Amino acid sequence: MFHHVKSLQFNARVSKPDPRFANLLLEQFGGENGELAAAMQYFTQAFGAKNPHPDKYDMLMDIATEEFSHLEIVGATIQMLLKGVNGELKDAADQSEIMQVMDGNAAKESIIHAALSANPQFPIITGGGPTPRNSQGIPWCASYINSNGDLTVDLRSNLASESRAKLVYEHLMKFTDDPYIHETLSFLMTREVTHYKMFEAALDSIQPNFPPAVLAADPRYLQQAYNLSDGTVRGPWNEGEIKGMGKDFVYIENPIAYVKQTEGQTKLPDDYSKELKATEKLDKEMSAVKSEEVKKADPKGVAQWSTY
Amino acid sequence: MFHHVKSLQFNARVSKPDPRFANLLLEQFGGENGELAAAMQYFTQAFGAKNPHPDKYDMLMDIATEEFSHLEIVGATIQMLLKGVNGELKDAADQSEIMQVMDGNAAKESIIHAALSANPQFPIITGGGPTPRNSQGIPWCASYINSNGDLTVDLRSNLASESRAKLVYEHLMKFTDDPYIHETLSFLMTREVTHYKMFEAALDSIQPNFPPAVLAADPRYLQQAYNLSDGTVRGPWNEGEIKGMGKDFVYIENPIAYVKQTEGQTKLPDDYSKELKATEKLDKEMSAVKSEEVKKADPKGVAQWSTY
Amino acid sequence: MFHHVKSLQFNARVSKPDPRFANLLLEQFGGENGELAAAMQYFTQAFGAKNPHPDKYDMLMDIATEEFSHLEIVGATIQMLLKGVNGELKDAADQSEIMQVMDGNAAKESIIHAALSANPQFPIITGGGPTPRNSQGIPWCASYINSNGDLTVDLRSNLASESRAKLVYEHLMKFTDDPYIHETLSFLMTREVTHYKMFEAALDSIQPNFPPAVLAADPRYLQQAYNLSDGTVRGPWNEGEIKGMGKDFVYIENPIAYVKQTEGQTKLPDDYSKELKATEKLDKEMSAVKSEEVKKADPKGVAQWSTY
Amino acid sequence: MFHHVKSLQFNARVSKPDPRFANLLLEQFGGENGELAAAMQYFTQAFGAKNPHPDKYDMLMDIATEEFSHLEIVGATIQMLLKGVNGELKDAADQSEIMQVMDGNAAKESIIHAALSANPQFPIITGGGPTPRNSQGIPWCASYINSNGDLTVDLRSNLASESRAKLVYEHLMKFTDDPYIHETLSFLMTREVTHYKMFEAALDSIQPNFPPAVLAADPRYLQQAYNLSDGTVRGPWNEGEIKGMGKDFVYIENPIAYVKQTEGQTKLPDDYSKELKATEKLDKEMSAVKSEEVKKADPKGVAQWSTY
Amino acid sequence: MFHHVKSLQFNARVSKPDPRFANLLLEQFGGENGELAAAMQYFTQAFGAKNPHPDKYDMLMDIATEEFSHLEIVGATIQMLLKGVNGELKDAADQSEIMQVMDGNAAKESIIHAALSANPQFPIITGGGPTPRNSQGIPWCASYINSNGDLTVDLRSNLASESRAKLVYEHLMKFTDDPYIHETLSFLMTREVTHYKMFEAALDSIQPNFPPAVLAADPRYLQQAYNLSDGTVRGPWNEGEIKGMGKDFVYIENPIAYVKQTEGQTKLPDDYSKELKATEKLDKEMSAVKSEEVKKADPKGVAQWSTY
Amino acid sequence: MFHHVKSLQFNARVSKPDPRFANLLLEQFGGENGELAAAMQYFTQAFGAKNPHPDKYDMLMDIATEEFSHLEIVGATIQMLLKGVNGELKDAADQSEIMQVMDGNAAKESIIHAALSANPQFPIITGGGPTPRNSQGIPWCASYINSNGDLTVDLRSNLASESRAKLVYEHLMKFTDDPYIHETLSFLMTREVTHYKMFEAALDSIQPNFPPAVLAADPRYLQQAYNLSDGTVRGPWNEGEIKGMGKDFVYIENPIAYVKQTEGQTKLPDDYSKELKATEKLDKEMSAVKSEEVKKADPKGVAQWSTY
Repeated sequence: MFHHVKSLQFNARVSKPDPRFANLLLEQFGGENGELAAAMQYFTQAFGAKNPHPDKYDMLMDIATEEFSHLEIVGATIQMLLKGVNGELKDAADQSEIMQVMDGNAAKESIIHAALSANPQFPIITGGGPTPRNSQGIPWCASYINSNGDLTVDLRSNLASESRAKLVYEHLMKFTDDPYIHETLSFLMTREVTHYKMFEAALDSIQPNFPPAVLAADPRYLQQAYNLSDGTVRGPWNEGEIKGMGKDFVYIENPIAYVKQTEGQTKLPDDYSKELKATEKLDKEMSAVKSEEVKKADPKGVAQWSTY
Repeated sequence: MFHHVKSLQFNARVSKPDPRFANLLLEQFGGENGELAAAMQYFTQAFGAKNPHPDKYDMLMDIATEEFSHLEIVGATIQMLLKGVNGELKDAADQSEIMQVMDGNAAKESIIHAALSANPQFPIITGGGPTPRNSQGIPWCASYINSNGDLTVDLRSNLASESRAKLVYEHLMKFTDDPYIHETLSFLMTREVTHYKMFEAALDSIQPNFPPAVLAADPRYLQQAYNLSDGTVRGPWNEGEIKGMGKDFVYIENPIAYVKQTEGQTKLPDDYSKELKATEKLDKEMSAVKSEEVKKADPKGVAQWSTY
Repeated sequence: MFHHVKSLQFNARVSKPDPRFANLLLEQFGGENGELAAAMQYFTQAFGAKNPHPDKYDMLMDIATEEFSHLEIVGATIQMLLKGVNGELKDAADQSEIMQVMDGNAAKESIIHAALSANPQFPIITGGGPTPRNSQGIPWCASYINSNGDLTVDLRSNLASESRAKLVYEHLMKFTDDPYIHETLSFLMTREVTHYKMFEAALDSIQPNFPPAVLAADPRYLQQAYNLSDGTVRGPWNEGEIKGMGKDFVYIENPIAYVKQTEGQTKLPDDYSKELKATEKLDKEMSAVKSEEVKKADPKGVAQWSTY
Repeated sequence: MFHHVKSLQFNARVSKPDPRFANLLLEQFGGENGELAAAMQYFTQAFGAKNPHPDKYDMLMDIATEEFSHLEIVGATIQMLLKGVNGELKDAADQSEIMQVMDGNAAKESIIHAALSANPQFPIITGGGPTPRNSQGIPWCASYINSNGDLTVDLRSNLASESRAKLVYEHLMKFTDDPYIHETLSFLMTREVTHYKMFEAALDSIQPNFPPAVLAADPRYLQQAYNLSDGTVRGPWNEGEIKGMGKDFVYIENPIAYVKQTEGQTKLPDDYSKELKATEKLDKEMSAVKSEEVKKADPKGVAQWSTY
Repeated sequence: MFHHVKSLQFNARVSKPDPRFANLLLEQFGGENGELAAAMQYFTQAFGAKNPHPDKYDMLMDIATEEFSHLEIVGATIQMLLKGVNGELKDAADQSEIMQVMDGNAAKESIIHAALSANPQFPIITGGGPTPRNSQGIPWCASYINSNGDLTVDLRSNLASESRAKLVYEHLMKFTDDPYIHETLSFLMTREVTHYKMFEAALDSIQPNFPPAVLAADPRYLQQAYNLSDGTVRGPWNEGEIKGMGKDFVYIENPIAYVKQTEGQTKLPDDYSKELKATEKLDKEMSAVKSEEVKKADPKGVAQWSTY
Repeated sequence: MFHHVKSLQFNARVSKPDPRFANLLLEQFGGENGELAAAMQYFTQAFGAKNPHPDKYDMLMDIATEEFSHLEIVGATIQMLLKGVNGELKDAADQSEIMQVMDGNAAKESIIHAALSANPQFPIITGGGPTPRNSQGIPWCASYINSNGDLTVDLRSNLASESRAKLVYEHLMKFTDDPYIHETLSFLMTREVTHYKMFEAALDSIQPNFPPAVLAADPRYLQQAYNLSDGTVRGPWNEGEIKGMGKDFVYIENPIAYVKQTEGQTKLPDDYSKELKATEKLDKEMSAVKSEEVKKADPKGVAQWSTY
């Protein structure tokens, strides 16, 4: 169960209203790489982790809870950046404001004008508060999150999520000169870095963790690097050793000819039967280990989530 | 900031796996009337409420936090209802299971078959865990929530949300005979009723609260009940007193003729000038009161969300 | 079946083009609280209401039809606010206009410049007309509507919908000083108030109507108000009588301790067996009444919707 | 404004409940090619057509209104196909039904079991009624409709829409043997054919109508048919006359070489200067004609949609 | 399989950065009528066409491949229009830029200011590159494409798609005065015209192709043109011959009365039994022809897509 | 520009139709982790990479092109798995099939019955072919892809994408016993592993690549690991060295107290001024390096994408 403490995890402050930046900051409230996405991703992953991996469950719930707390920081900052909008809206009978907006004259500085320009939904729909949508009004969508029931995959999804979130905060920092907001963003950006290192350590603690999940790579199709884009640029990603796999890349200079000659890669020039057998054996072993790990953690009989 | 306690708010238990019911229960995890929708709705509304209405802010955050805790209960129940799915998936090299599925024979009882039938994403995508989508796989979407910066509106949105959530739990209860799940659903359903009463009491504590928001109804267009559907059924919704408004419904038997005669309701038979003046006055007064309420609560200078 | 009359229900007029306001007004054409959402919500609810509740069916279809007529008024107003855009677009070979736009000079007043700034889809996609999207281009989505097969729920959804629609019109009125549009918006806003009162009267005519739907609240979990947000603000929503339920709120000061002591609320301090029996009895009675109501209205044999 | 008549445009009847077919039929209620899509497409297009083309406006509104009436027929049929579901749901306290469902025994014929299998939202969310979603639960979305402010384009969109709707009805007819529903579907399918012919006649009445909109094709790039898919199949779509354009296709056997030789088609082998000049002239003429057509229809001064 | 050549199909060039136009151009990258929509539509249709209609398959794949190449041209142009944005973002520690933006002073010309104004996601999310979203940030969605397994329908969908794409390019051309971009857009616009003619020729090569798909129109409901919109405008779409059908329109002046008199069109004044029999016969013949066409092309036994 | 070769990259074969597996396989055609998502992600990332990193551009386009080729393999397999569906649909006048479906008798094996059960859109909408939607009918959506203009971020997104795609193929392989399909899936799964290694090598070739993007972590907030989930599980993710950062985790046992004591982390116990200065210096250096890298690659003057 959750508990809420009214103090924010970080002392978010705002020097003065700025609806344009409030709108940009929506990316981290309701955007695809924002705090809600992070919180819901780790929270959702945690359910499957609990029984086989209580330590990873604890870590995922810890970080999910921190991300919910960050979501609150971002929302509070947006609300403060929109200070004045709601009050103006409540003055519903007064039209003087809007006349000035229409004229585009001196009163252009008005908060409600700025809010309208930044995001038409601020004055019309949200009443001058945050909304779980991105900077272009796209509602947050659960397809932003990845939770696939395998920690060697889920933790890699998390490394990517944290990387993107870090970048977005870096970009956002260029668009405000409010020192208080800078401090808040610096805190939030850095926490993504910390989470990255936490997820990385957790992934390292699972061995082997590559290829992700259970099955090994098929030796027949692992080594080819196809020259499909009519280019000749070679690099460590298509020549030399495939790091950690004990094999080298085989560069297919002319993939169309190669496919035709091998009848769609079903008649390969080399004999892989030995390697295939080894792979099959490995797959069975890994399957036994990994499924046992989960099955033995699943209690028999009536399932109960918590003890009290 | 949030804090997480590993014990569930309610002691959720499950007698035996049931992927079909797990799928139905997704409606309350990632569905339009589910716990995530409720939690995010009240959480989002709370930001705007904090300064002018710290008491309502506390109530909204309390209930939001409880809904996050309910989301956890629902997710835990889904995970327990899918017990066995993840373990089978990890046995990646074993095909015997699926052979039986294909044959549709005795092994039909198998958990992975049941999961596949209930929701193809359970075995293919979620790895046998919950996902913030509904029973048909639609990802949760922030357009499910309403937060519009006015408590007389937001609280009414909440009364409707709680009513729908209550109904969905009632429907779900018909589709399981597991007494543990019944108990959990009875708890969750009842909490929606309690929240309803809490929101209702909060709305009553704001006076006046009708019409919602600030402006009064235009006296020229308030009373008409148009017979637009070629019917003749009369009831308290189109005849007699408009409760609490001091006026009666005026039933327009033939709206097409009425619209033509009144030139699109711009040449009404009655004189409303006096009433219009009164409405205008009322609007100005309400505007002054309501905007002042918000403005005076907005601290000058640097904004800071929390004190420590 | 529907019939269309070319005269608008209200004599919508526009003093001069204003693409920015046209864009805002899209909220009521294709937005989440707009006229299409209202029309489709009541229209969809009406199907289930027809047989058991022909009077409510008539009311729902009446109001749905009025909302379709309002949708037409809003669309017509948007079209008039964009006067000139389509004509300029047809002058496809002429680039002088755009040169001025690019230069941002005197010709800034041009309608096509204003349209582009207000909403890039006005000149590029819609050709200068309305589109069932909101002010940020989000296409109207059927998840905006709620229709759940129970009038005590559906009518409450409608009260919330009308409240939001009223608020949005109130907000929109601040952003135009065109007296004709003001008149139109005042008409449309007021109709939402009238519909609210109609739905309220219809809900009152169903007794009992609380809790929504059929089942009573579980007496074990109804009274608790949890202090989950670390606050101490008390109000009628968490102390004193739960209005109309014959019970008082029980404030749980320390919910974490309470949950642990009660083993997740399965070992409550009080004995509820008597109340539970009463609830069960009530549930059966209500079930009998409510299901009979629907079943007896369903004609046996071949179903036919209309008589002629 | 709209008016509603309680009789359906077609006497929809249903022999017996069939939730599976009810679910399929959702494609025509809330699906991408369904009646709501058609109604909203023509209705939206009509706004732009009204002033310059009052005759086409009348046709679009006529057909839109008919499609709304068809939407009602489809919704009514779905409701009748789900007869019994709502009544069972109201019997909320009774679990006997679901026990049988769980056992999968004799009672398998039960309507609520059939509804659950057909679409989990029928018993859980819609309460046994239609919903503007498709057969897989995707909410209807306004991006299904096309309205682009040019009748030579819009009418072609409509020809395609009617073709798809016709095909979907044809497919649906294979999946029911209820003679009453067959009759209804035959009516609805045929009306799509009629509308196709109406839109075709309307398009023919606009001359010239090709290329769609205003600008002529660029003579430099019109004739090429590139062999991009490594194939050698020739047909009237890549050889011989380009019907109605007074030119022939030029088949580019080796597009990669062609692009390189022509420096990305900027150094073409032929001289097009004369043709380009002719095209430019034509563009100016057409622009003048088409823009004048719209502009002269736009009344000066205050815009008013209807006369009374 | 696909192969990529680094040279663009057309030599896209850009005179100077222009983020606002980059944003408009997103409509053709990730918009509903853009190149991705076209490419994916024809690509998806091609799978079903391959066996029965290898010639149409070749054409569809040719054009799909060209559209992917156009998508690349559009993306490259957007990238060039945003030149400078990414470089500025990498200068993450420098705030001078944004100060100027905030002040709105001389430096207003800065690329990053222009990018932010054009589309907040350019600097915050995409890092100054294209994204498969439209000009308002709506992510590309597969519901934009139509592929329905019948060439007489699919090709008509394609005629509509090409018409809309042509119109969008025409609109876009008005909003740039860069001669290089004009040339690119003129190329792209013209190719849509060519594709239109190719699809038209392909549709003509299938006889009969009307009504689309297999079944004939029901003679009882084909001829009616209902006066549903209270208008009196007559035209070739509701009077005279229904072109190519050997019948005339029958104008129903008063549809409400007509529906009542005919008992929902089930008691029509004329006898259609003979025509119905003829229709039934025709349906059987067409069914035999069309299904045979597909079935005989489906090879027995193991299916293999390609030969090598 | 793209070129298409009719031979598939892998010789996809199918032993016999299987609509249920066809539906599962849609996850890799139009699902969130499928081939279209991969292809479009790398293709979109490539635009920004081209000038500063032509080698990475080549790699991204190579792999994007291979993913488009995989998309084709998956689509072809789905089409073969649905063999017979389209032919049956064309037999539009024949109802015998459906009668059997309704009866659920011997003919249950029928392909059209299987298709209907697997996915109602197969027979009703797609005509028995693939569609860019997932196994639950959700249309593919561009929000599935990540392209953020920084290779240290984008390549990490790709590592996660490949991991998920690998897992989904592993899951799919459990649900078919067709040896041909197994071979195809083994090929496709393995290619994800190869791409993973390619992206990993590319990321390694960029140094430094952590933290992602430009800015360093703020030393004040990097080390804290908060005990937010009321747990006591310690591991390498919250104790000991933060790998590669030269610092240790600092475990905050009681975050609520810590936040209060530090006034929302603005009054930290340690002095970080020296470290902050060092960070600032590092940020400036990295900014200079990274922005120069991009800027110098951006040619001055007219931009041209390709040379010929």
